[in-house]
Amino acid sequence: METKGYLHVYTGNGKGKTTAAFGLALRALCSGKDVYVGQFVKSMKYNETKVEGLFDGTNPAFGRIRIEQLGRGCFIGRDPEPADAEAAHKGWSRCAELLRSGEYAVVILDELTIALHFGLLSTAVVLDVLRNRHPAVEVVITGRYAPQGLIDAADLVTDMCEVKHYYRLGLLSRDGIDR
Amino acid sequence: METKGYLHVYTGNGKGKTTAAFGLALRALCSGKDVYVGQFVKSMKYNETKVEGLFDGTNPAFGRIRIEQLGRGCFIGRDPEPADAEAAHKGWSRCAELLRSGEYAVVILDELTIALHFGLLSTAVVLDVLRNRHPAVEVVITGRYAPQGLIDAADLVTDMCEVKHYYRLGLLSRDGIDR
Repeated sequence: METKGYLHVYTGNGKGKTTAAFGLALRALCSGKDVYVGQFVKSMKYNETKVEGLFDGTNPAFGRIRIEQLGRGCFIGRDPEPADAEAAHKGWSRCAELLRSGEYAVVILDELTIALHFGLLSTAVVLDVLRNRHPAVEVVITGRYAPQGLIDAADLVTDMCEVKHYYRLGLLSRDGIDR
Repeated sequence: METKGYLHVYTGNGKGKTTAAFGLALRALCSGKDVYVGQFVKSMKYNETKVEGLFDGTNPAFGRIRIEQLGRGCFIGRDPEPADAEAAHKGWSRCAELLRSGEYAVVILDELTIALHFGLLSTAVVLDVLRNRHPAVEVVITGRYAPQGLIDAADLVTDMCEVKHYYRLGLLSRDGIDR
């Protein structure tokens, strides 16, 4: 039981999905586990990506983190293009390899659900890789619109419901708080 | 608008509340902001508290973090005792001081809602301090059972709904993943 990795899904329209994944990454790193973060769709580097420099594997008390942007940016105001599907497929190949190898104890697939929702990747293919992953790998998937098949396959699902969001006040994304 | 701090509440029965707060702390630290975490009720040191050693203010590229346990442990299987209320009051005095001074750009009040729910602290008193805090301080409150007054006062509220939790499989809290 102790060495089995579980599958988490953080979905819903509220703030806190990617943030919770990074909180979990921090906790894992602090216990000496290595963490991989593959960010689908997103192409912008958020502030938290700077932690790569801190958790670089040189301090034996902490794990190391690797963060990779696997997308071409979000689809707000545009439709996904063939190049987005290509980027998602290439990114998924990379993640599938890491899921099989078990090189990282924790694998975070940020906004993977968006890639599934927009049909850039097949849910069936993703589920097959998840089922056949290295059994010790803990997987954390974040993003809106998690497909039912993924929810069925998950061991833990939190639906982060927006009760209120300050974006509705016209507040823009702020450095160090929202990105 | 840029220097105004907002009030976040992460509540609900699903996993991800404290984790999201620590993810936000990580983001803020990476952008050079100082972060204070006051943990009400909890007395156990989670893995993530080890980050104090990494973000200690000596690296100018990162903020510093201070994490304090302000409680005597959770109430699972027991009722709150007068000593719990004393601890909560003492902890709240400390937090109120930091909220007024603005010493930390981000103040996280972890499980504060539990202290409110069990009547260890008065919601009216807490709201008054929050309203009169240093205006630049971003406040993040986590925990189940957020009282309506707090939700009304917040700028951002996410209700983290448990769809599934692996604790139901009999899985215990795991080092580096759940604590």
